[in-house]
Amino acid sequence: MNIPSALRHQFVSILAVAVCAASLPLAADEAPPPGTMAAVLAASTAEDWRPLDPEKTLYLDLDAGRVIFELAPNFAPAHIANLRLLTQAGWFDGLSINRVQDNFVTQWGDPEGNKSLGSAKAKLAPEFEQTWNRAWRMTRLPDGDVYAAQVGFIEGFPAAMDERAGKVWLTHCYGTLGVGRDTAADSGNAAELYAVIGHAPRQLDRNITVVGRAIRGMELLSALPRGTMPLGFYAKAEQRISIRRMRFAVDLPPAERTPIEVLRTDTSTFSALIESRRNRRDEWYLQPAGKIDLCSVPVPVRERR
Amino acid sequence: MNIPSALRHQFVSILAVAVCAASLPLAADEAPPPGTMAAVLAASTAEDWRPLDPEKTLYLDLDAGRVIFELAPNFAPAHIANLRLLTQAGWFDGLSINRVQDNFVTQWGDPEGNKSLGSAKAKLAPEFEQTWNRAWRMTRLPDGDVYAAQVGFIEGFPAAMDERAGKVWLTHCYGTLGVGRDTAADSGNAAELYAVIGHAPRQLDRNITVVGRAIRGMELLSALPRGTMPLGFYAKAEQRISIRRMRFAVDLPPAERTPIEVLRTDTSTFSALIESRRNRRDEWYLQPAGKIDLCSVPVPVRERR
Repeated sequence: MNIPSALRHQFVSILAVAVCAASLPLAADEAPPPGTMAAVLAASTAEDWRPLDPEKTLYLDLDAGRVIFELAPNFAPAHIANLRLLTQAGWFDGLSINRVQDNFVTQWGDPEGNKSLGSAKAKLAPEFEQTWNRAWRMTRLPDGDVYAAQVGFIEGFPAAMDERAGKVWLTHCYGTLGVGRDTAADSGNAAELYAVIGHAPRQLDRNITVVGRAIRGMELLSALPRGTMPLGFYAKAEQRISIRRMRFAVDLPPAERTPIEVLRTDTSTFSALIESRRNRRDEWYLQPAGKIDLCSVPVPVRERR
Repeated sequence: MNIPSALRHQFVSILAVAVCAASLPLAADEAPPPGTMAAVLAASTAEDWRPLDPEKTLYLDLDAGRVIFELAPNFAPAHIANLRLLTQAGWFDGLSINRVQDNFVTQWGDPEGNKSLGSAKAKLAPEFEQTWNRAWRMTRLPDGDVYAAQVGFIEGFPAAMDERAGKVWLTHCYGTLGVGRDTAADSGNAAELYAVIGHAPRQLDRNITVVGRAIRGMELLSALPRGTMPLGFYAKAEQRISIRRMRFAVDLPPAERTPIEVLRTDTSTFSALIESRRNRRDEWYLQPAGKIDLCSVPVPVRERR
């Protein structure tokens, strides 16, 4: 008896859609099923989208392609200023990805740990959390969170809040970009960076400075060979992945920037998207979850129009 | 100014330890810090560990090595019986991994979808959940869950429970092994399998039959190149990763089995391990989370002693 090839295709239609859902193809005459994310995005207006701000956009250029991060200077201004200095000096260029630990992080910087930081600072006061600022709108999620009293999206970033303490912080989800540090709280300086490549390691929240999140190109970091040394360090120097260049978008000529835009998270369209993911209306789902956790909510990205 | 190389090493000491934590080396004269997972494991006794049952162990042998899954016949008896028939007939041998979707799943089976299933069944009644059985002990987690009323570990597997409905089911975490299906609930037959390679896709819970979880070798599935077609299918046949052999351990001669053992999840040692992960006592952590989510709890594995 044959397995219908539809099996494969249907199974996946369910499973679809991570960050780049907006770019999934639909036949021109095929309307997406009502209540699905595809339908929500199809109904979105130009005002629902925002271009990436080149002052807040970081490119990690590898031989295999470009990883694009959006930065959050309202959460980590000092670390991002230091990172800008480093990138403007070309500090990362020719350094490498040195560590890939399965279901955890990919980490890059100076494998020898002795390259001069130039004008950048070696120590920075931690930016693990920020005082709640009423200017920030949080799109709150309705289903709770294991780790924090309240979670949602602020300025496009997954975030958590403790209203009683008046604190807010960026959370560790897949694609989160953070700053390595030593045991001392002030030992991070943005010369060692990591991106999350597995299940959300929320235990890191408020223990390390988060500076942003990946917008595109995560597969260039997540599909790398895992290092075989403890904690995923590569055993041999030749296994490291060379960094061609790391720059803020604003420091590159416009022709070298990637024109993409992101769905705003303070819109009714994004709220509808959350609902479409809480209760999947795709044909495949027999029992919609009725819930969603913070790190399962996608923030769609598309080519700039 | 130099970056201390300790930075890299300290940062990681924090981040350490996924599934294979038990195998992390410690210098002989170095006692692990009290309250850490390393200390809990160092204090474990032989009775805290169990060998994998060869009747419930599945090997996926690739050119790059072996992925080992533990199966859960109490949760999915019919699917696992069908899978046994398929593997005994060598059905998967020479087939391939056809799909790798970033932050989601790696999926394998017959890329053409037309290979005869032989004596195995093409349709099976779904085993999305089971009626709660008092013979099963659940080690419950104390911090709640976004998706289910109660979560914890049953027979070594992350699981969720709805006591009022009297139902229990295996959850989708990193490494979960499931059975692809078409839109019809009974269209899964274990000839298409997937493993989770990203953040826990809990929306799949109770929509698809889970048959087990990876015990070792996940990096052989998670570090594969992502497919560039929609949903992560490989664009070209030559990109597919060939399956050398897939067998239950019991169907291989003992010399070809991998002798590993797993920490029991119904022990006080496992409860201590959970606590060590809720509140990290490693020097690096400045603010222990005080909480843990289901898919962040490791189930340690070690060489059989």
